[in-house]
Amino acid sequence: MSFEVTILGSGSALPTLRRNPTAQYIACNDRHILIDCGEGTQNQLRKFGVKIQKINHIFISHMHGDHFFGLVGLLSSMHLLGRDNGINIYGPKELEQIIRLQLEIGGAKMNFNLNFTALDNSKPTVIFEDKMIEVHSFPMKHRIPVNGFKIQEKEKEFNIIGEVFKESGLSLMSIPFFKNGEDFVDENGQIHYAENFIMAKKSPKSYAYCSDTAYFEPLIPSIQGVNLLYHEATFIEKLADRAKATFHSTAKDAAIIAQKANVGKLILGHLSARYDSGDEHLKEAQTIFENTIIAEDGMIFQV
Amino acid sequence: MSFEVTILGSGSALPTLRRNPTAQYIACNDRHILIDCGEGTQNQLRKFGVKIQKINHIFISHMHGDHFFGLVGLLSSMHLLGRDNGINIYGPKELEQIIRLQLEIGGAKMNFNLNFTALDNSKPTVIFEDKMIEVHSFPMKHRIPVNGFKIQEKEKEFNIIGEVFKESGLSLMSIPFFKNGEDFVDENGQIHYAENFIMAKKSPKSYAYCSDTAYFEPLIPSIQGVNLLYHEATFIEKLADRAKATFHSTAKDAAIIAQKANVGKLILGHLSARYDSGDEHLKEAQTIFENTIIAEDGMIFQV
Repeated sequence: MSFEVTILGSGSALPTLRRNPTAQYIACNDRHILIDCGEGTQNQLRKFGVKIQKINHIFISHMHGDHFFGLVGLLSSMHLLGRDNGINIYGPKELEQIIRLQLEIGGAKMNFNLNFTALDNSKPTVIFEDKMIEVHSFPMKHRIPVNGFKIQEKEKEFNIIGEVFKESGLSLMSIPFFKNGEDFVDENGQIHYAENFIMAKKSPKSYAYCSDTAYFEPLIPSIQGVNLLYHEATFIEKLADRAKATFHSTAKDAAIIAQKANVGKLILGHLSARYDSGDEHLKEAQTIFENTIIAEDGMIFQV
Repeated sequence: MSFEVTILGSGSALPTLRRNPTAQYIACNDRHILIDCGEGTQNQLRKFGVKIQKINHIFISHMHGDHFFGLVGLLSSMHLLGRDNGINIYGPKELEQIIRLQLEIGGAKMNFNLNFTALDNSKPTVIFEDKMIEVHSFPMKHRIPVNGFKIQEKEKEFNIIGEVFKESGLSLMSIPFFKNGEDFVDENGQIHYAENFIMAKKSPKSYAYCSDTAYFEPLIPSIQGVNLLYHEATFIEKLADRAKATFHSTAKDAAIIAQKANVGKLILGHLSARYDSGDEHLKEAQTIFENTIIAEDGMIFQV
């Protein structure tokens, strides 16, 4: 099973030719997720070879345009491409009105359902769950209400070592026990230890997305120990005042959060248009958190 | 004085990597105009080197998303880039609500005025006029109300031949007469013929934009004799049925209109995503109207 994050846009409110506004595509155990959808996201999806119709969950962090202006265009294209299976959209309650209004005025009769879920912004919440993954939202701190998101694989069953099981001649009844990591007692009362029949389990992976937010320690418990963290770093410390005034983070802020949350790897994104490369961001962050990388549009990360 | 049309998007509802959704930038005698504004238009403006802040008039033809989904993002970027002079937006009355709603929800307090003018769709109308240009709207035929636009230079004053005038020793009072092409009678009753003092005048140029529309002869008087016509050609004749059903034109339809309106040159645009090149469109149109070209994103036309 794979768990991949594709950066569709690594820029901030003012897009540049190098950095599109924010969007990310996450493929996790055959779940296809879009987080945020700035203007031009559908074009980025095409450019980077993502199949638009696979996406079935869209999470919108907040109502600043660089995080949602591309959504109505993407939904229109899904319709024109013949989609008939519904799509699940999670975001601030105002999002539904804006999307439906634009589609209605244009006279579009969509052939698929838009299932909106208005997100709570008061506390960490599980907003989606199935047998393979969980998605959590958690409040962050910005000029308007904003959620971060965490995507987490669920604990998997143990895989059984086929050859060992065959040689043992045990009945199939034993399998559910071993898959749960439990020992099996046969009809003669003999104990068959699970550890002899199962492979080491891969630990579930997790990815967290924090954009946009000021430096905000209360979000740390929600992202504690994730394998991969995307955190906004609109500015560097030279513009710390500007970061504070606009409720954004500096590269240093993001690195401190990554360190305190003990994450595996940190991606910095949402870079202000004033920075051509992210070289200064990287240098600043790595003095605090070594395993850092600057997001570029089109990058793919294995979680 | 120059009069140039830059194609920012030559595609139709479903954008492709080759063709963005519809938008055009027109620079006419120092007036800077945007017609339609599909998703990603601000990026196209950047890509093709147009200075965003120069634009002071935006005309939106109709409320299908591929003609306006990029407007709110463009206005946001104008704001972030420090704009303080107002912008004039002309379009269907529903446009204002959609734009203001999105900006308000995001908490954007724009530093410049958005001056909306709701366009009439019942008859040809002069919607903007100053001493250099006129802009006309005219109804076309589509699934929802839609306007075409014509941009027309005004008749200019005559330019005076400086040397001849100097040598004549005539008083400055004669200049306004000559500029109007009128003869001047001096205080001795002598007639000075304007034709000796003025250069041949360039005739005023005009450009018309017709997208989206079915084949629609009633628009011909509004575009009669323009130097340059952009007409949609979403389909070719093989899909004439589909054109009829969706209220779009074929390449042949557009060519017939160009011929009947006796225009100088025809540009075909708004090509359906199903066509990779416009080769078949061109062949079809040129059997009827030879001076035809297929629009490509980034093309610049001198009117």
